[in-house]
Amino acid sequence: MVDVPALVEQARAGRPRAVARLISLVEGASPQLREVMAALAPLTGGAYVVGLTGSPGVGKSTSTSALVSAYRRRGKRVGVLAVDPSSPFSGGALLGDRVRMSEHASDPGVYIRSMATRGHLGGLAWAAPQAIRVLDAAGCDVVLVETVGVGQSEVEIASEADTTVVLLAPGMGDGIQAAKAGILEIGDVYVVNKADRDGADATARELNHMLGLGEARAPGDWRPPIVKTVAARGEGVEEVVEALEKHRAWMEERGALASRRSARAAHEIERIAVAALRSRIADLSGDRRLGALAGRVAEGGLDPYAAADELVAGLTEG
Amino acid sequence: MVDVPALVEQARAGRPRAVARLISLVEGASPQLREVMAALAPLTGGAYVVGLTGSPGVGKSTSTSALVSAYRRRGKRVGVLAVDPSSPFSGGALLGDRVRMSEHASDPGVYIRSMATRGHLGGLAWAAPQAIRVLDAAGCDVVLVETVGVGQSEVEIASEADTTVVLLAPGMGDGIQAAKAGILEIGDVYVVNKADRDGADATARELNHMLGLGEARAPGDWRPPIVKTVAARGEGVEEVVEALEKHRAWMEERGALASRRSARAAHEIERIAVAALRSRIADLSGDRRLGALAGRVAEGGLDPYAAADELVAGLTEG
Repeated sequence: MVDVPALVEQARAGRPRAVARLISLVEGASPQLREVMAALAPLTGGAYVVGLTGSPGVGKSTSTSALVSAYRRRGKRVGVLAVDPSSPFSGGALLGDRVRMSEHASDPGVYIRSMATRGHLGGLAWAAPQAIRVLDAAGCDVVLVETVGVGQSEVEIASEADTTVVLLAPGMGDGIQAAKAGILEIGDVYVVNKADRDGADATARELNHMLGLGEARAPGDWRPPIVKTVAARGEGVEEVVEALEKHRAWMEERGALASRRSARAAHEIERIAVAALRSRIADLSGDRRLGALAGRVAEGGLDPYAAADELVAGLTEG
Repeated sequence: MVDVPALVEQARAGRPRAVARLISLVEGASPQLREVMAALAPLTGGAYVVGLTGSPGVGKSTSTSALVSAYRRRGKRVGVLAVDPSSPFSGGALLGDRVRMSEHASDPGVYIRSMATRGHLGGLAWAAPQAIRVLDAAGCDVVLVETVGVGQSEVEIASEADTTVVLLAPGMGDGIQAAKAGILEIGDVYVVNKADRDGADATARELNHMLGLGEARAPGDWRPPIVKTVAARGEGVEEVVEALEKHRAWMEERGALASRRSARAAHEIERIAVAALRSRIADLSGDRRLGALAGRVAEGGLDPYAAADELVAGLTEG
């Protein structure tokens, strides 16, 4: 058994291995998961969670890396959670990227964690918020969550951030792709990366049009800014950070940050409750009850809804 | 409100519109869903359910169409459920394909139904078994369920058939792709389609090797046959039907068919029960309980697991 309080203390003191260990404990179905979560709870709430999403090829990882640098220049501790199969941080490594993130690998103020999506996309919506809690409790001022804007769960993760950044790049019919993937509804800040390429202005215009940014809004409404960047050269990245801070300030002013975090917590609680009920049902699979009901359904003696009613009744009785 | 008993009677009498209507009722969240399912239950169990899956481009739709012809020659009534975005039956049409299935479009012994996957893959594992029940109750002797072997839910649907056919085609590194998608574990019968192309023998050999078919097996174990076909010309299709019948006979001999159907029913019941519990939780979202818990979690006063416990306790009490 792991000494959870000691591990939490080490994580707070900035020991990356302790952070990694805690994330591993909350990612899986560790018997100490609940103990870890209970220990983390009072330490959370300090981190600002920024979701970054966009189609493959728009430069999410490069943008994430550039944002890390920008926040480090401000003296902030930064956590990165990469939920993106195309991310160079892939492979389960903490502090580990041998490509673009190498500049941050030896920086004790940066934690990097990748999360595999393969095979358990359903489990991602589950594991990501818990990993964010660890990074938050470990003292990160900002947690950047990078997801590829393709799968539904991944879009969901990004959209549950405090501020969600949607990245696009010129060409590739990205505007349309973005609309298809539903990511036009979730952005608080839009970034047109690779803005040195042809078509960057056209993409920004198209985006402006699709977002209806030209239209009148109620006073006080958030008007998502569109920022052009060349992340690989760091251009425009300061403007992105400014846009993020503006959005944060806007939300805090209105109490919107607290309500967004409450909504995120509500989803998290719901998912855990559903999983708990699901596992109670799975326990019944070992039991004869489900087997007997299934046999009757297979023979046509009972329909599956009536069988489910019987199962649920048995479950909630005790 | 629909007159369900009349609709069921019309479906039994071979009226395709009644079948289509019933499928629509069970696919969605119709208020009459339960009534329909209860009416269907005693009429089910007669259909033999064959799942067909494989990567895009292996010729699933052509093979399905050729199998329909083969079963029609035997005087069987056939249902087709196409859960494949690349299928020519796509678009929600019953009896509707203007391309390869046109030969069956006017055949009163064939029902064709396509199911969209886009946007609700999670809902597919849910809707497909219910649509199969309709086709079964409508008097189909065989139901062919065509899914693209890419998504997890789709593989799951195919693997829950009475007999699962995995299709491959020469080249394209299909063997490896199949292994990746996990479809090598689910096949009862393997088909190498487009066998007139170069590399068909190599694909069959690779498959034979990957399946470990050269290895010793316990006597009585099922040894998945590998059948080579050119579905577009109907070549080898009779051999596929023979392989399917051999597998069916093998399962019936051992009582394996009944237990496979029980397992399928158990999964169906579980899914419905989980959904029912999930919707009870969703009902609580309107309630103050979840909101209050979420607020405490967002503030760090409570961890989400403890909150979920409270939520579930409240749920099962009332």
